[in-house]
Amino acid sequence: MTFCRAFYIGRFQPFHKGHLHAIKYILNECDEVVIGIGSAQLSYSIRNPFTAGERMYMIRIGLLSENIPITRFWIVPIPDVNNNDIWVSHVKALSPTFNVVYSNNSLVTLLFEKEGYEVRKIPFLERDKYSATYIRKLMLKNKPWEHLVPKVIVDYIKEIKGPERLQTLASKDE
Amino acid sequence: MTFCRAFYIGRFQPFHKGHLHAIKYILNECDEVVIGIGSAQLSYSIRNPFTAGERMYMIRIGLLSENIPITRFWIVPIPDVNNNDIWVSHVKALSPTFNVVYSNNSLVTLLFEKEGYEVRKIPFLERDKYSATYIRKLMLKNKPWEHLVPKVIVDYIKEIKGPERLQTLASKDE
Amino acid sequence: MTFCRAFYIGRFQPFHKGHLHAIKYILNECDEVVIGIGSAQLSYSIRNPFTAGERMYMIRIGLLSENIPITRFWIVPIPDVNNNDIWVSHVKALSPTFNVVYSNNSLVTLLFEKEGYEVRKIPFLERDKYSATYIRKLMLKNKPWEHLVPKVIVDYIKEIKGPERLQTLASKDE
Amino acid sequence: MTFCRAFYIGRFQPFHKGHLHAIKYILNECDEVVIGIGSAQLSYSIRNPFTAGERMYMIRIGLLSENIPITRFWIVPIPDVNNNDIWVSHVKALSPTFNVVYSNNSLVTLLFEKEGYEVRKIPFLERDKYSATYIRKLMLKNKPWEHLVPKVIVDYIKEIKGPERLQTLASKDE
Amino acid sequence: MTFCRAFYIGRFQPFHKGHLHAIKYILNECDEVVIGIGSAQLSYSIRNPFTAGERMYMIRIGLLSENIPITRFWIVPIPDVNNNDIWVSHVKALSPTFNVVYSNNSLVTLLFEKEGYEVRKIPFLERDKYSATYIRKLMLKNKPWEHLVPKVIVDYIKEIKGPERLQTLASKDE
Amino acid sequence: MTFCRAFYIGRFQPFHKGHLHAIKYILNECDEVVIGIGSAQLSYSIRNPFTAGERMYMIRIGLLSENIPITRFWIVPIPDVNNNDIWVSHVKALSPTFNVVYSNNSLVTLLFEKEGYEVRKIPFLERDKYSATYIRKLMLKNKPWEHLVPKVIVDYIKEIKGPERLQTLASKDE
Repeated sequence: MTFCRAFYIGRFQPFHKGHLHAIKYILNECDEVVIGIGSAQLSYSIRNPFTAGERMYMIRIGLLSENIPITRFWIVPIPDVNNNDIWVSHVKALSPTFNVVYSNNSLVTLLFEKEGYEVRKIPFLERDKYSATYIRKLMLKNKPWEHLVPKVIVDYIKEIKGPERLQTLASKDE
Repeated sequence: MTFCRAFYIGRFQPFHKGHLHAIKYILNECDEVVIGIGSAQLSYSIRNPFTAGERMYMIRIGLLSENIPITRFWIVPIPDVNNNDIWVSHVKALSPTFNVVYSNNSLVTLLFEKEGYEVRKIPFLERDKYSATYIRKLMLKNKPWEHLVPKVIVDYIKEIKGPERLQTLASKDE
Repeated sequence: MTFCRAFYIGRFQPFHKGHLHAIKYILNECDEVVIGIGSAQLSYSIRNPFTAGERMYMIRIGLLSENIPITRFWIVPIPDVNNNDIWVSHVKALSPTFNVVYSNNSLVTLLFEKEGYEVRKIPFLERDKYSATYIRKLMLKNKPWEHLVPKVIVDYIKEIKGPERLQTLASKDE
Repeated sequence: MTFCRAFYIGRFQPFHKGHLHAIKYILNECDEVVIGIGSAQLSYSIRNPFTAGERMYMIRIGLLSENIPITRFWIVPIPDVNNNDIWVSHVKALSPTFNVVYSNNSLVTLLFEKEGYEVRKIPFLERDKYSATYIRKLMLKNKPWEHLVPKVIVDYIKEIKGPERLQTLASKDE
Repeated sequence: MTFCRAFYIGRFQPFHKGHLHAIKYILNECDEVVIGIGSAQLSYSIRNPFTAGERMYMIRIGLLSENIPITRFWIVPIPDVNNNDIWVSHVKALSPTFNVVYSNNSLVTLLFEKEGYEVRKIPFLERDKYSATYIRKLMLKNKPWEHLVPKVIVDYIKEIKGPERLQTLASKDE
Repeated sequence: MTFCRAFYIGRFQPFHKGHLHAIKYILNECDEVVIGIGSAQLSYSIRNPFTAGERMYMIRIGLLSENIPITRFWIVPIPDVNNNDIWVSHVKALSPTFNVVYSNNSLVTLLFEKEGYEVRKIPFLERDKYSATYIRKLMLKNKPWEHLVPKVIVDYIKEIKGPERLQTLASKDE
């Protein structure tokens, strides 16, 4: 059987149990997965509070805590390019080679299929709940968000004062 | 009489009969027209579905199908610059020289007039109808849009599956 | 006592009496102030009508007209960078060294505090009134705005036809 | 037989009889040729004295003066990207589609072949003589260069004072 | 004792036994090392033949083949920024936090020390021999280079035809 | 008589007595001078050791120490743009308006004259000696350079350890 290395991209602001679910799903079908950190150059904004380095750290400790073998995943920061038509080339230059893509995003699917890649869908895990947008909203409102994120990542986010950072970024000038 | 080469810019997402009307109007007053493809670096988004190359192709086949002599027009892709104040210089460096500008856009008019150019208005052809925004909306809703675009361009857009591309870009993640 | 050079940033679109008030406040506590012109690369848009050069000119004539000693302030244009996490380094490379920051903006405060700077708040002078957004709105509607801006800057803005520029930028295509 | 549209890139600083020879050779084998103007963003330097607009103009008048049908060629400015690995995607987004590439350049050949394109070589026409580098050198030294460039382009280069521009750019500060 | 995570940067064009030696040295003193891939955006040039993705792959298989625990290293691509003064911030945003830097490079040392980092030197392993510049030269001349690079990386470089790529890039136009 | 504001650009790495001489010469002919700091984004390299902020500081203290009225000069950092043809627009957007340019540089002269500016030459003050390149060379070799630079700037350069910085940047990796 052919070796299968998959590509899977997200912004991971923050990494949550839905992402974990997706990666487990992919690793059930493939040997390895390259996890692309999208919009890697963005941080310290409401939509993108965490730096690429913080997100890389979250992902690795999260997967290790779930006993996913570290040899089966790669983490690759992907800065944005301002032209969708060159984006796939950009990803390919930054990543170890892969032969299948997993995505539910229509633009990602369109661009990779145009370049001849097989793109597979991922069954969502209760999408309304396991959503980074929703989690950031909970953090902003000081409501419980911890059950949606792997335990070690919760601890890390608290250590770097993630919710406070978000609340500061959202605060009106006084 | 002085030789007159005009500059006319649009994003042409897609090129439609209103653009054709404008170019005919300009060529009635001027010897040649430089057609600038604005936001040339953008593609594969809802507002800018087509690449610069696809738009250049549309414009040329559209004008040729209307028997506009190819020697009377130039097509020049113009990528965006992030500073309006240097935009006219940027256009001038990319284009054959021109001595008049046709535009109904207030920013384009302001910037060219500041640099000493004569800017002339173009009578609109039923503006609500002949609008690229409106045409993209029709494509998205799977409603008839073909009567608004020159026949050869309709065929080309269908060949490259333009409406499907737009619908995919607009689709929610599943 | 330690020499105190402060950093204070704004977009100054345009510079108004609230900014003047802030600078006087800072110079009451510090020896010198570095005035950063934010989004220096932007101009000729509704939100950013004036160029960095025009804003630098406004600030200098405005402060001189108020008898603020020119040796006590510096004016430094700061173009945007697209990554908040490197923004403080970017500012530091462009500016004479400073040892305190004045800001009411939460992002500015967060980023400078992360780098170890003391960030102090500035008491607002009737914030709803002395607001550049509000002043641009008045200009757009052709309503009196002149009482909100130092006299010499009013004269300069009229000389460069600032309100007309804004109105043109806001006008719909005809 | 399949329709053949070729891609051919050069910097054309300036366009000379060797380029003309290459284009005639290509049009002997193919239906159409897309002529890419490389390093389109560069101008006013010793290596790149002419703007993209000036080069586009030279190419068109040069080909027309040789009775090459204007419907058989396209001229497309290609600004540099700083990453060779995405360059082919960048070219494809800016150009009408093509199915064969003509190049004697090893990097261009390598990059296009990697993306699956057929790359064909072009027989050189006395390469030492018909070389833009050599022509710029002749211009700098005020030696005859006119026999190496199509007549209409010679006239245009003189009209825009090309040799003087080069000599000024090369002059030491006084 | 404090946890020690080191930062170590190179271009790794290609990764060789000298790099391996350095990483072993660092891991003798520190718990973990972040390996920064410098000039990550460059590839397909004589000085930078390999993409960031290819280099990331080389490093990981090379270290694994030497039984270095994968949990003790991180691999982070670092694209260049054009301003040295913001480079350290850029690195920090892309990388998991680290508390010591290993480098023999004077610019890297200067920039990190300016930001308060401890920078330690690494004893070179026969520097003239274990040098990527020298290895690329050997590849270009078709001389034996394989003894300078870990075996699994030799195999990978041959699989992706690295020496042929370099030779093509270096070849004169024919 | 018309008000005269001049533009004068340099990289000022570092600012020396030749620059001072030039500015005095200009202020003998003009009311005010805008001093552009070229390549403002570069620093911490052998050719560009000082940041824009450090250079701005040098220029101001240097001119003040010579009793040049601070109201007669402006200091404006000018980052590079990669296209010479848009450079004048870029300068104009960043600077207060000026009506004459002083330069001995052929490219600067060519570009400003093309935009219709009067460009005047500046008599050099012993050019071999008062040259920033020469001064950096002296610093590198640990030879006396202090007599070529205004006293207050010498003190400042020593305070920020300028010669040591240069020497470090020039040192080979150990």
